Amino acid sequence: MNAIQIIAKKRDGFSLTESEISFMVKKFVDGDIPDYQMAAFLMAAYLRGLDREETFFLTKCMVSSGKVIDFSPWGINPVDKHSTGGVGDKTTMILLPLVGACGVEVCKMSGRALGHTGGTVDKLESIPGFRTDLSLEEMISQVKRVGIALSAASKEIAPADKKIYALRDATATVDNLSFIASSVMSKKIAGGAKRIVLDVKVGKGAFMKEIDSATSLAQTMIHIGERFGLEVSAFLTSMEEPLGFAVGNSLEVKEAIEFLKGDAPLDLMEVCFALASEMLILAGICERLEEAQSRLQKAIDSGEALNLMRKWIEAQGGRGEVVEDYSLLPRAKKILLLRADREGYIQAIDALKVGQAAHSLGAGRLKKEESIDHGVGIVCLKKVGDRVRENEPIMEVHFSDERKLEVAIDLLREAVFIEEDE
Amino acid sequence: MNAIQIIAKKRDGFSLTESEISFMVKKFVDGDIPDYQMAAFLMAAYLRGLDREETFFLTKCMVSSGKVIDFSPWGINPVDKHSTGGVGDKTTMILLPLVGACGVEVCKMSGRALGHTGGTVDKLESIPGFRTDLSLEEMISQVKRVGIALSAASKEIAPADKKIYALRDATATVDNLSFIASSVMSKKIAGGAKRIVLDVKVGKGAFMKEIDSATSLAQTMIHIGERFGLEVSAFLTSMEEPLGFAVGNSLEVKEAIEFLKGDAPLDLMEVCFALASEMLILAGICERLEEAQSRLQKAIDSGEALNLMRKWIEAQGGRGEVVEDYSLLPRAKKILLLRADREGYIQAIDALKVGQAAHSLGAGRLKKEESIDHGVGIVCLKKVGDRVRENEPIMEVHFSDERKLEVAIDLLREAVFIEEDE
Repeated sequence: MNAIQIIAKKRDGFSLTESEISFMVKKFVDGDIPDYQMAAFLMAAYLRGLDREETFFLTKCMVSSGKVIDFSPWGINPVDKHSTGGVGDKTTMILLPLVGACGVEVCKMSGRALGHTGGTVDKLESIPGFRTDLSLEEMISQVKRVGIALSAASKEIAPADKKIYALRDATATVDNLSFIASSVMSKKIAGGAKRIVLDVKVGKGAFMKEIDSATSLAQTMIHIGERFGLEVSAFLTSMEEPLGFAVGNSLEVKEAIEFLKGDAPLDLMEVCFALASEMLILAGICERLEEAQSRLQKAIDSGEALNLMRKWIEAQGGRGEVVEDYSLLPRAKKILLLRADREGYIQAIDALKVGQAAHSLGAGRLKKEESIDHGVGIVCLKKVGDRVRENEPIMEVHFSDERKLEVAIDLLREAVFIEEDE
Repeated sequence: MNAIQIIAKKRDGFSLTESEISFMVKKFVDGDIPDYQMAAFLMAAYLRGLDREETFFLTKCMVSSGKVIDFSPWGINPVDKHSTGGVGDKTTMILLPLVGACGVEVCKMSGRALGHTGGTVDKLESIPGFRTDLSLEEMISQVKRVGIALSAASKEIAPADKKIYALRDATATVDNLSFIASSVMSKKIAGGAKRIVLDVKVGKGAFMKEIDSATSLAQTMIHIGERFGLEVSAFLTSMEEPLGFAVGNSLEVKEAIEFLKGDAPLDLMEVCFALASEMLILAGICERLEEAQSRLQKAIDSGEALNLMRKWIEAQGGRGEVVEDYSLLPRAKKILLLRADREGYIQAIDALKVGQAAHSLGAGRLKKEESIDHGVGIVCLKKVGDRVRENEPIMEVHFSDERKLEVAIDLLREAVFIEEDE
């Protein structure tokens, strides 16, 4: 068995065995297979596809390339949640205190912003003092005390995925169903999750633009989960327009807190309630959807969820009073109002373009080393379906650097479609 | 324009522009595009294919990556010949003195053995003293004095092809029609050829196993030649069984000399006469095939061709008396006779397996740095269609190292098919 033979076999459209996939992944991680051979392999697999067996084998190799967390000796059994990435997706920050207040334990690792999509770790780091570098022991101890914990993904978890992802990113082999599914699931499985709710985004602002491909991705991830003996539920949620109003790190933290105070845009509420209900059901706290939803509503109305948000922030070193005093959050220097150029109905707000606009203002990064500006971003004042008058403000553009404004404005102008009345 | 976008465009099946292909090739040669991005690009191009325009652009980039030889200021206008590589293919060593004796100038660069196929440069180096490292000036001066010259490919010719070939070799992207065509033609064009006869091998022992793919390869190379304003003729010749009797470096030199003395197996004679006739016609020495063939026969019968072989060898520093005294050639220590295990007709002799057997005896190399054993190889005593008695010798196995014999014998046993009478 050698790398060239395995590359050629996949190139010619044959299915690979577990030992062949393991050979490629292990030797690549060990440095025995050079980047260029792995790159050729990834492109061959991208174009020829990996079947379910192969995708499962790939996931298995990536899981076993690093540490695999087992929560059972610690006496906790957390429920995990994962989103495939979107624009304005602050659900994780909302779900943790919301389900935590209902008694669900969550001990979760999250990612950073990459490309036009945001990352929960970056968002939470808007909160002064908030630590995202918790050790496993710190996380478990916090779950036992507070019920929830979130940390940046550990380097020890699925290192093969990290090395392969970096190469995929540089070789135009990112948006492949098997690669995405195995990357997500390997991190979840190695991260110790036994019960996972997946939020697969579909639409202009997501990796999956079509319902069909999103459905396939969801099915593939569920299949991988089943092969590992996990309980996995998946939701397909829309990512045509940004989720909620805010896009940008501290702006989204504020929106998450507002949510827990009972003030939320409809689309964000629907997604959060759907995911949170399923988490309650998977955790065995509720049996039926209606029961779960009223339990969640109670956690909001009673202030329990907001209270847990404050405790959670404080447990991770952050200033809990931020839930009352938003002035503690980083702010952009200036706000520009983007106004409607005509009267009519908002027909579309292109999430990808809004994400790219926020990114160009400094909310995201192109390379892992880059720093981000936590204060900048966009607040949508109108959502799809809303009526606007000519010259009425549609968006707030929170910016700090005038030089970055022009690109963002152009993107936002292209993002909004207003349909004039007949 | 960046590498990832160009890789993605080819990955998705779109045709690339000249500037996109040039961007990839130039920046790869300059080291600005890393191996792994080029590897992903090559696999995408391998699987999606390059159209004729793209293949022409690729060839153009590789030609202009190095020195481009122009013979016109030197007052010579050589005819070139290229074979796509086979087993027992000693035609170049025969054609140079044969057409040279008829007045055709040849100033040719050749390759070394790689894989199971031999290389003319290695074969000629069997002759004591024969230099294959001539400078361009030495070659031209020799063509003016002697009429023919052959040297190992210069590093200055199409360096992009060399760098890309090395990567293809390591990433299972060798046997692609566009890559092979552009690799061959870029070297020929940069090597100054204006009139080229191509020998495209088809069959078990060739890169192209099927007539269809060999025809496409020939057409692609002719098309590239036309775009550069060259006269190109192509022949498809069989590489099912080894060409002629001998496989192995000094064994093939001996067979080439025997050919020029008028003693040749039929298949080798047919291929050499076809290619040589076309070279005479392209050079404008003869107009019609029959005329060319009788001119060639005369060059053999009169001893002119053999005489030029001797002069050629001497011009390049070799011992010319080798044409009469084969004991000057390196010999293997021992000869083993492989015998027929039954009576019948030889139905097939698998050229690939015979090539691999010769390779395993030490006639070829796996890596460029390896040295080869010029004396070892195989002499077929029977050809396809011949009748054999049980226990009659079919092949001589010339070997020096007993430890390498077993693998070779197994391959040769598998290579020969004898059909028993009804």
